[in-house]
Amino acid sequence: MQELKDRIVKEGKVLPGNIIKVDGFLNHRVDTGLMERIADEFGRHFNMDGITVILTAEASGIALASIVAQRFQKPMIFAKKAKSDNIEGGLYQSDIFSYTYKKKVTLLVSKEWLHAEDKVLIVDDFMANGEAVRGLCDIVEAAGAELVGIGCAVEKGFQGGGDRLREAGVNLHSLAVIESAKPGNIVFREN
Amino acid sequence: MQELKDRIVKEGKVLPGNIIKVDGFLNHRVDTGLMERIADEFGRHFNMDGITVILTAEASGIALASIVAQRFQKPMIFAKKAKSDNIEGGLYQSDIFSYTYKKKVTLLVSKEWLHAEDKVLIVDDFMANGEAVRGLCDIVEAAGAELVGIGCAVEKGFQGGGDRLREAGVNLHSLAVIESAKPGNIVFREN
Repeated sequence: MQELKDRIVKEGKVLPGNIIKVDGFLNHRVDTGLMERIADEFGRHFNMDGITVILTAEASGIALASIVAQRFQKPMIFAKKAKSDNIEGGLYQSDIFSYTYKKKVTLLVSKEWLHAEDKVLIVDDFMANGEAVRGLCDIVEAAGAELVGIGCAVEKGFQGGGDRLREAGVNLHSLAVIESAKPGNIVFREN
Repeated sequence: MQELKDRIVKEGKVLPGNIIKVDGFLNHRVDTGLMERIADEFGRHFNMDGITVILTAEASGIALASIVAQRFQKPMIFAKKAKSDNIEGGLYQSDIFSYTYKKKVTLLVSKEWLHAEDKVLIVDDFMANGEAVRGLCDIVEAAGAELVGIGCAVEKGFQGGGDRLREAGVNLHSLAVIESAKPGNIVFREN
């Protein structure tokens, strides 16, 4: 998606440790107009009529997933990252390693809200090593639901998480795949 | 907002410790159609033309805040709850006590994205003791920005957080204020 790539080049910052910071429009201050256009791109790639629920992980995935879900009149479930007092009883869970926080976190989805008859589109704003999405795939599988696909805004292609999912046969569609990133020089994968 | 009150009565659960669980439509599985109608209610109460940014706190506030922001073509900023590697440099911060997690957390907003000329609408899904919103107010003040108002979907009136803000002169508008909650008997404040 050219608009997204242009924003990454114009506003993204490359920090030490291969961190690509796009928090001015994607995951801290969110450009909701851009999220709408990303949602429309996903709508062109996935058959939204066949999807019953949008699934993401807290926190930064929620903004994009909410707007995708709203635009296609779906409910949105976000996996929680710690057990809080207001999740009771049965939970699907998956342990992942967070690249951002450099520690293990557990993704949780209540069994009340995800069911075997669901057809799930996973949406995330940013994929680094793909751990969050892998955890969400585990949860979809544990629920016996069908994973229709994964829509991701920005993927760090050089960390391999996305390609591992593609090799496993998952319909992963990322709108900007970054192949290499140095300050002042961000290179995207050709479509 | 009658639709919201009806959903709370029909689907809400009252758990020990005065926890009111509305995670089937508000803060785990999110009914995005309801979020749109909540956004429209806020649009009737607040002058959206005068607002430059919607502010919320991660994680559960993000879904509603995103849809409010999208509907009125505003950017949305979410305060983060822990220092991650991809927030660099100057931060506004406020320490709050999380009723849900029973511990102190720090809300963080990058100085890059909130400015003195901003006119801010704070949006949150759920107010218990009002700590998250109080922390967001601190951040707006630290930025020198103008707090136009606070739109909250569900407020637990009996915990007093909302009334403390009203007494301080804040334009807080909650769409369902719960005065008392026992299993099978949830009572709302009269408008």
